[in-house]
Amino acid sequence: MPLVEGLTGDREIRAHFAAEAEIAAMLRFEAALAEAQAALGIVPAEAAGAIRDVCAAPFGELDAVRAGMGRDGVPVPALVKALRERVGAPHGAHVHRGATSQDVVDTGLMLRMRAVLALLGGRVEALLARLDGMAEAQGGLDLMAWTRMQAALPFRAADKLATWRRPLEAHRARLAALAADLPVQLGGPVGNGDGFGPLYPALRADLARRLALRDSPPWHADRTAVLDIAHALALLTGTLGKIGQDVALMAQTGMAAIELSGGGGSSAMAHKKNPVGAEALVSLARFDAGLLGILSQSMVHENERSGAAWTLEWLVLPQMAEAAGAACRLAEALLAGARFVARPPAG
Amino acid sequence: MPLVEGLTGDREIRAHFAAEAEIAAMLRFEAALAEAQAALGIVPAEAAGAIRDVCAAPFGELDAVRAGMGRDGVPVPALVKALRERVGAPHGAHVHRGATSQDVVDTGLMLRMRAVLALLGGRVEALLARLDGMAEAQGGLDLMAWTRMQAALPFRAADKLATWRRPLEAHRARLAALAADLPVQLGGPVGNGDGFGPLYPALRADLARRLALRDSPPWHADRTAVLDIAHALALLTGTLGKIGQDVALMAQTGMAAIELSGGGGSSAMAHKKNPVGAEALVSLARFDAGLLGILSQSMVHENERSGAAWTLEWLVLPQMAEAAGAACRLAEALLAGARFVARPPAG
Amino acid sequence: MPLVEGLTGDREIRAHFAAEAEIAAMLRFEAALAEAQAALGIVPAEAAGAIRDVCAAPFGELDAVRAGMGRDGVPVPALVKALRERVGAPHGAHVHRGATSQDVVDTGLMLRMRAVLALLGGRVEALLARLDGMAEAQGGLDLMAWTRMQAALPFRAADKLATWRRPLEAHRARLAALAADLPVQLGGPVGNGDGFGPLYPALRADLARRLALRDSPPWHADRTAVLDIAHALALLTGTLGKIGQDVALMAQTGMAAIELSGGGGSSAMAHKKNPVGAEALVSLARFDAGLLGILSQSMVHENERSGAAWTLEWLVLPQMAEAAGAACRLAEALLAGARFVARPPAG
Amino acid sequence: MPLVEGLTGDREIRAHFAAEAEIAAMLRFEAALAEAQAALGIVPAEAAGAIRDVCAAPFGELDAVRAGMGRDGVPVPALVKALRERVGAPHGAHVHRGATSQDVVDTGLMLRMRAVLALLGGRVEALLARLDGMAEAQGGLDLMAWTRMQAALPFRAADKLATWRRPLEAHRARLAALAADLPVQLGGPVGNGDGFGPLYPALRADLARRLALRDSPPWHADRTAVLDIAHALALLTGTLGKIGQDVALMAQTGMAAIELSGGGGSSAMAHKKNPVGAEALVSLARFDAGLLGILSQSMVHENERSGAAWTLEWLVLPQMAEAAGAACRLAEALLAGARFVARPPAG
Repeated sequence: MPLVEGLTGDREIRAHFAAEAEIAAMLRFEAALAEAQAALGIVPAEAAGAIRDVCAAPFGELDAVRAGMGRDGVPVPALVKALRERVGAPHGAHVHRGATSQDVVDTGLMLRMRAVLALLGGRVEALLARLDGMAEAQGGLDLMAWTRMQAALPFRAADKLATWRRPLEAHRARLAALAADLPVQLGGPVGNGDGFGPLYPALRADLARRLALRDSPPWHADRTAVLDIAHALALLTGTLGKIGQDVALMAQTGMAAIELSGGGGSSAMAHKKNPVGAEALVSLARFDAGLLGILSQSMVHENERSGAAWTLEWLVLPQMAEAAGAACRLAEALLAGARFVARPPAG
Repeated sequence: MPLVEGLTGDREIRAHFAAEAEIAAMLRFEAALAEAQAALGIVPAEAAGAIRDVCAAPFGELDAVRAGMGRDGVPVPALVKALRERVGAPHGAHVHRGATSQDVVDTGLMLRMRAVLALLGGRVEALLARLDGMAEAQGGLDLMAWTRMQAALPFRAADKLATWRRPLEAHRARLAALAADLPVQLGGPVGNGDGFGPLYPALRADLARRLALRDSPPWHADRTAVLDIAHALALLTGTLGKIGQDVALMAQTGMAAIELSGGGGSSAMAHKKNPVGAEALVSLARFDAGLLGILSQSMVHENERSGAAWTLEWLVLPQMAEAAGAACRLAEALLAGARFVARPPAG
Repeated sequence: MPLVEGLTGDREIRAHFAAEAEIAAMLRFEAALAEAQAALGIVPAEAAGAIRDVCAAPFGELDAVRAGMGRDGVPVPALVKALRERVGAPHGAHVHRGATSQDVVDTGLMLRMRAVLALLGGRVEALLARLDGMAEAQGGLDLMAWTRMQAALPFRAADKLATWRRPLEAHRARLAALAADLPVQLGGPVGNGDGFGPLYPALRADLARRLALRDSPPWHADRTAVLDIAHALALLTGTLGKIGQDVALMAQTGMAAIELSGGGGSSAMAHKKNPVGAEALVSLARFDAGLLGILSQSMVHENERSGAAWTLEWLVLPQMAEAAGAACRLAEALLAGARFVARPPAG
Repeated sequence: MPLVEGLTGDREIRAHFAAEAEIAAMLRFEAALAEAQAALGIVPAEAAGAIRDVCAAPFGELDAVRAGMGRDGVPVPALVKALRERVGAPHGAHVHRGATSQDVVDTGLMLRMRAVLALLGGRVEALLARLDGMAEAQGGLDLMAWTRMQAALPFRAADKLATWRRPLEAHRARLAALAADLPVQLGGPVGNGDGFGPLYPALRADLARRLALRDSPPWHADRTAVLDIAHALALLTGTLGKIGQDVALMAQTGMAAIELSGGGGSSAMAHKKNPVGAEALVSLARFDAGLLGILSQSMVHENERSGAAWTLEWLVLPQMAEAAGAACRLAEALLAGARFVARPPAG
């Protein structure tokens, strides 16, 4: 773990992208699939029960799945093999029945993203409350508005806070709307559902219901759902970067428009207090902005499944989420220690 | 104009980003602002009439505005000066009253983006009809599905067409929703509306109504509205790039899964017919994907107006729109000349 | 042409990417190729003479080449057809003999990039002289150094100027080194030179010599040469963006560390003078930085020629060069109107 | 650790970016600085000895440095505090004398990058040997060359291998040249060396010599050195992505131009063998390409030290290096299991 993680990392978000969380989400999928198939009579009820029990038990084959990932480019063959062995004959053959790697991996991602979006939503909620508190305490203060790097006209702290609050409120609504509308992925090997037989529509709807996801036609080769999440993450991190940039500018020596408490020591200049949280917010915003541009490349998803485009998503999306989480955390700390300073009357 | 423009350009879209179109949209703003102010008694009715007439007349000071842009970094001071001179005393002083450059430029952009989004929406509509026609004519054909660059299992042309159609249909709906919800920008010099006086909320609402935009608090320092448009453009271009990639793979020598007519001559190999439209779709998708990452940097919009972040938008958004338009055009031509070829029964 | 072009455009650079310049460079290639082939006895001397004459004459088929570009995805089939018709029987068949589109287009690009790099080099040279003049006039002045957005310790204007000058001097050397080492492209249809017969090495060397390019094995599928140029452009634009950012910060109201003359009028606040050149430098730096990330995608150049990757280069490289040129122009104007202001003795 | 790490991670490279490696490199800097200062009589020899001993001993304050990083935005204040306490009075005050965070962090980075570049260079060397072996074993085989996604003309496996080998050979030379020319960073708080007194030039030269780095004026606000490394990493990863793309295309069902052994199992289709290594190479290339675009944003490094731009480097460069390392590893495994297959004589 590099040192910078102490500044720009977010353990709580990162946990949702650890192998253990990936596997847990995939096990939820496999259990729910078996249960949905049992409910429709596709799979014996005893098989579904056995699969559910195995999926609920501690998973001991992490190393095998890691190795499988390196070998197969997806964790699913090794995961399914492990589950089938644990379930044993005669029910093991019903594990993952009709499904393909992408069903498990994409649905598992959506389950984890729901938790991540909720977590971020809660943090944005806290930021909004923080801004409200600042408006209540200091909203009437006279500040100088700056346009194009020049003092423009006086306005109030409430005006400044409003420019920070409005986008955050919209982002909170966006995160909630996304979290409530995440699509299930179930299409089978080539994404047309044929392998599930005539009950496919009912099965997909029931699976979605069990996982509290939106029933959706397969989106195996259409990554809009992933990009919509990434866009929301970049917007959130971008707004927080804008707040960081504003604070860094307002806290400049001599500007005295905001006072910050805590942190920012220098190894050479004892008199300095650096606005490190504000700066890191700018870094994270630029980071997520650029990562969005990389992730968007994965829209060129060739044919019915692109290993190249899909793998690119795995490299990018988790760190976008972690950066957004870290930005929320840094913004909260930054604002908790910030106090506007009224401009001198003569200005 | 470089040669590549003949392949990847789109004159119809580009026209909306020409100086003439920019100025026309800004004149619409200035006329509507004056009329709204007159309706509220802020400005004499005669002044509003005079301003409206001048804004409706041919604009002859393009060169002055161009020069002003280079000097002031925004076209508005030169534009307003020209209008005030044309309106003359005593009404000239009411031109642009209480407004700032960003009100004019951002609102003007939204007016132009509405036309662009409508134009793109119409083209996507045509693509959907094209795909429906293909499904009707050839949907029952047996094709091979490919996953991870390997033949997977047989499916039907209708399945392939559905993976192309579904995202396009969603993008069409997204374009329409965006076009119907574009926000007016009216906040005055520092974005709090103070300069417009107590009638500011009524004025902003009336201005929005006159321009058929959504009444919205100022978003001068929150560029979400611009990013939402850019995200839609990148999604659309990305899906079309995916179609292009699919076609290029299916049209490979020996694959014979799709036949293309027209174009693609080689200077050295007379036997070759290159899928140039399909390739260009991939290029445009990667282009817009990356541009989205650049544009997202403009979320770090410092203080009440950032010349640096704003100018970056002007450099990027127009070419994203033009690339999306060109991709629609290329996709239409590509699919119009494409015929699926059934795979041999033995596979 | 959009209004922003008046701020961030560069006509002189752009001229090298206009269709006329593209064609002129391609004609130089075709003439030199024929002459080199004649010198080696591959082509009759009369044919080479006829080809050279046609290539030296005004080219009237621009529209046909534009149309060919849209149809074939490269301008070369239409260009060669026009040349062969103009040369006529019996020599016309010797036009473009053994060559492929990529030989013409890539070599033509290198010829134009040499001019562009020289032009940029000259501008950087002028900037260095400008900085030297500033150091001579004001180098001894006391300024405040700023680290992490906080006043750090006093230093001299000469120190500040040195941090601007050092990278520019290195970039000048880099531009010159690149311009002196641009590779010829000659490999024929599949890039192995076979079509030119046993004299291929001699032919390639002679062609390179005639065009004052470096003799090089084909790099049709290795775009390092293009990326090295783009990297240099992004570095140059990045350093100028850093200068712009410094100036914008130093020119902030109340900082009074630098005074700027000229431009920057506001439509709403007559008292303001915006550092628009400094801001635009930041925009252009972020623009070219991001474009470098897009262009780098073209390294994934499939097989012996990728239309998708190649077209992406055509979309990106010209605007990177123009942005670099505009940044030089803006920096020159900015620094010509800039004067450092000594910090008050008490600090 | 996410599962994808098993596919696209590289532990050996990553180790150089772990906190322990960062601290080890910073300790080397502090020891060498003290020794160089002692050699010049700036610091007592006993102090240098004490500092060297402490820097050579196991470092036990990792947690404090991690916490310091989160608080100060740089690890150096906590690191120096720990060292000074360990050295104790009277010599402790000589630790880090005259230096600033950036001297330690940037020089430490260069020391680690040297090891990383050497490691990558060795891997590229092995790839070149692998390609040579393939050329020896199969170079004479007839293959089909493909241009613009269409079969073009026959060529030999040696021709294909040459298009892979040439850029790799150039990249190897580039990596070696970079590793041999990495600059020391020593400038003190504001980057002009003043704090080191009149012996500054001699001190910097001696420090560089001790660390086997190039003596260089401070580059604290000029990140060209970092970008040159990143550019080399993106080029290397890009070339390997091109190889991966070629292999994935050649290995397509029915193309039969290359045979791959090992890996690539599918959870739904037992008959499939997916070219997962080839696909991952494409992903990594697109990843590093885009990351280069993000890192280039850090050229806009405001004033004498930008926390925002510097932190962005820390977020991006390590993963660029790890991706390059993983790409080397994957390419080696891919090529070790690859065999060209001659095209049928009739073509």
